[in-house]
Amino acid sequence: MTRHAALPGFRDFYPEDVSRKKQIFDAWREAARRFGFEEYDGPPLESLHLYVEKSGPEIVNQLFNFTDKGGREVALRPEMTPTLVRMLGARIKELPRPIRWFSTSQMFRYEKQQRGRLREHFQLNMDIVGETSLLADADLLAAALEVHRLLGLSAEDVVARISDRRLLQQALVAIGVSEEQLPTVYNVIDKSEREPRDECIKRLRDIGLSSEAAEQSLELTTKSLDEFRRTYAGDESISRVLDELDQYLAALSSFGFGDWVMFDPKIVRGLAYYTGVVFEIFDRKGRLRAICGGGRYDDLFLALAGVDVPALGFGFGDVVLGELLKDRGLARQHERCADVCVIAVNDSMIQEALGIVADLRRAGLSVVFPYKRTGVGKALKSAAGAGTRRAVLVGPDELAEGDIVLRDLTAGSEQRVKVRDLVAELVSAE
Amino acid sequence: MTRHAALPGFRDFYPEDVSRKKQIFDAWREAARRFGFEEYDGPPLESLHLYVEKSGPEIVNQLFNFTDKGGREVALRPEMTPTLVRMLGARIKELPRPIRWFSTSQMFRYEKQQRGRLREHFQLNMDIVGETSLLADADLLAAALEVHRLLGLSAEDVVARISDRRLLQQALVAIGVSEEQLPTVYNVIDKSEREPRDECIKRLRDIGLSSEAAEQSLELTTKSLDEFRRTYAGDESISRVLDELDQYLAALSSFGFGDWVMFDPKIVRGLAYYTGVVFEIFDRKGRLRAICGGGRYDDLFLALAGVDVPALGFGFGDVVLGELLKDRGLARQHERCADVCVIAVNDSMIQEALGIVADLRRAGLSVVFPYKRTGVGKALKSAAGAGTRRAVLVGPDELAEGDIVLRDLTAGSEQRVKVRDLVAELVSAE
Repeated sequence: MTRHAALPGFRDFYPEDVSRKKQIFDAWREAARRFGFEEYDGPPLESLHLYVEKSGPEIVNQLFNFTDKGGREVALRPEMTPTLVRMLGARIKELPRPIRWFSTSQMFRYEKQQRGRLREHFQLNMDIVGETSLLADADLLAAALEVHRLLGLSAEDVVARISDRRLLQQALVAIGVSEEQLPTVYNVIDKSEREPRDECIKRLRDIGLSSEAAEQSLELTTKSLDEFRRTYAGDESISRVLDELDQYLAALSSFGFGDWVMFDPKIVRGLAYYTGVVFEIFDRKGRLRAICGGGRYDDLFLALAGVDVPALGFGFGDVVLGELLKDRGLARQHERCADVCVIAVNDSMIQEALGIVADLRRAGLSVVFPYKRTGVGKALKSAAGAGTRRAVLVGPDELAEGDIVLRDLTAGSEQRVKVRDLVAELVSAE
Repeated sequence: MTRHAALPGFRDFYPEDVSRKKQIFDAWREAARRFGFEEYDGPPLESLHLYVEKSGPEIVNQLFNFTDKGGREVALRPEMTPTLVRMLGARIKELPRPIRWFSTSQMFRYEKQQRGRLREHFQLNMDIVGETSLLADADLLAAALEVHRLLGLSAEDVVARISDRRLLQQALVAIGVSEEQLPTVYNVIDKSEREPRDECIKRLRDIGLSSEAAEQSLELTTKSLDEFRRTYAGDESISRVLDELDQYLAALSSFGFGDWVMFDPKIVRGLAYYTGVVFEIFDRKGRLRAICGGGRYDDLFLALAGVDVPALGFGFGDVVLGELLKDRGLARQHERCADVCVIAVNDSMIQEALGIVADLRRAGLSVVFPYKRTGVGKALKSAAGAGTRRAVLVGPDELAEGDIVLRDLTAGSEQRVKVRDLVAELVSAE
């Protein structure tokens, strides 16, 4: 006998859960539409190679991967970018640029089991491909912030922390960090908020940084943009990046998101392939994991698909955002009810009642009727219990005069309405 | 270098494919809403047991199944019903009946590779749980037909062929077919349209039916309801089923679907668990596989979840329906374009232009702007080339007087508009 629950880390969506999921999806899609993005989607199952090529063999430990019945090594997709690169790589020459694409697909990771750690989530991916200007970076972050705004959140609820890989890289090189040491230093900086300072210094010394270089590297993470400008006033390439960041921040202010954004050089994003602006959006209270993160990855298409196009994008999951909405009392309430219940007052009226059901549905109303023959009182009670607001009573005497009785189940009031006026009456009342 | 295609049998959805998919999803959801169904969803990955318990061990050959990193036997879902039974089984006591639920999820089967045979498809599932009345069966089929109507299809395009397992069973028992022989006889009848008559007779003789019983069994498949009524006039239980079918067909007529439905005793549905009315919807031209199929399965909840509730439902895939829409010229055309492109006529106007972009987006318009600084002529040409209908030109002289220039990219005409009137002007023009 089946008494299985869903697999650990997988969610069942009962109707009230679907309502909350739809609230998030509606905001995702509406923001994407307003920003001129087109929707795409790919298969949830892909060749394992696709993920190994992008992220290296260690990714396999985190995947739902297997050999299919045709001997293919396959995996449930853990992220959308490889599918995007594959799909765009195949058609890049045909498509006018910039390409603005979004998707809202389900991702899967075999995460170690922890409280609140899921093994699937839905993710909005928005990417702009074929554009080097930082105005595209600003537009992309504005789209992510617009999702929050559409959901009723404000700059008091969330903050986008932004940085630029080029700034950090050039500053670290100026300090004396070598190309080979950079990935580890990024990693230490990425984790510096959650790890003791001594531990960070130790990790930097372990890869060969001098005590002074290690200290200076960590100090970078607390610098403001002005401090960067003063410190590197003589460095032309750093100054150019700082000018671009000014333009980027000015654009976000013009979009009305000035208060939502702060420069924070601790943001490097874990992934190796970012090449420019990077950002993460957080709950202001700092209680939750990052809500959304992304940035510019200008070299990935060349590495993975052999086409040299600049690109930027983000992933924006449904789980942390859902927690934030609940926490702020903004999660959508589920409404389980039809607009109207049509009730035949006796057996002879059933076919007439069904005809009215069909007419009302074709006018766009949500309409139910009792499947089982019961008394009118019981049918009314059950309709009211289900939250239905109005009932249409179809009786022989009224119908002989072309009428039905329309009952307001909330107020308890009744009125006779001509059948031919019923659609107009109900549609105007909705 | 990644040059992988999607896995065989899996689809990539480019934006034009998403448009066609959305057309079908919109009709599915709209029909479900009008009929008072609530949406649910479950995980695409489930315990393998769930499918083996319902369909027997041979189902495994058709599944994408594997052992996960925690040693669990799991499978990508091939159908929704086991998930529905699992989810409802867990909460059946809390929910008011009848329960009307729908989902629009992706299904996976490791099908033998054939032209046009996919290994995934999306499927509308609609189920009514906790109701014995055949009015529920009529409502369910009407919902499936409403999807077609919403898409512009008519009774000239599709037909629902309906039958009743009870009728067939009782008629076969009257002919002398035993309980053990029934599944094979169903199977032969199910395939009788595509197999030579001799082959059908042979298969029936092989399981021990007399030549006469075999002939009579096959003759059943061509009988009309009237012929059933005449042949089994003395059989009370068959007469009761026939009365119920009359009521069922009358309800479908009252719903306006009289022309869409025909009785056809060849329809048995392959699956063993159906217990009452069964139906399949076909292209009238008979060129395509079944579009949608379902019926009543009153014993399945007891067998799988240990709760005795009657139920009925159908599965309705996106692939055959999509072929039919294309064939009839009804497939949605893809529109790749924003409503408006906002162009700064020189660099000093960029921040003002971005402010206007933000205002228009917040008014609900789909708005883009050139990321790269180019001449106005080039920007206009590129916007027109992308199908954008209107451009807003933000220049210093006009803006000094509170104006912008609104250009109709189709007509080539221009007008000066007050910035404060722009939203109203554009929204009214949409």
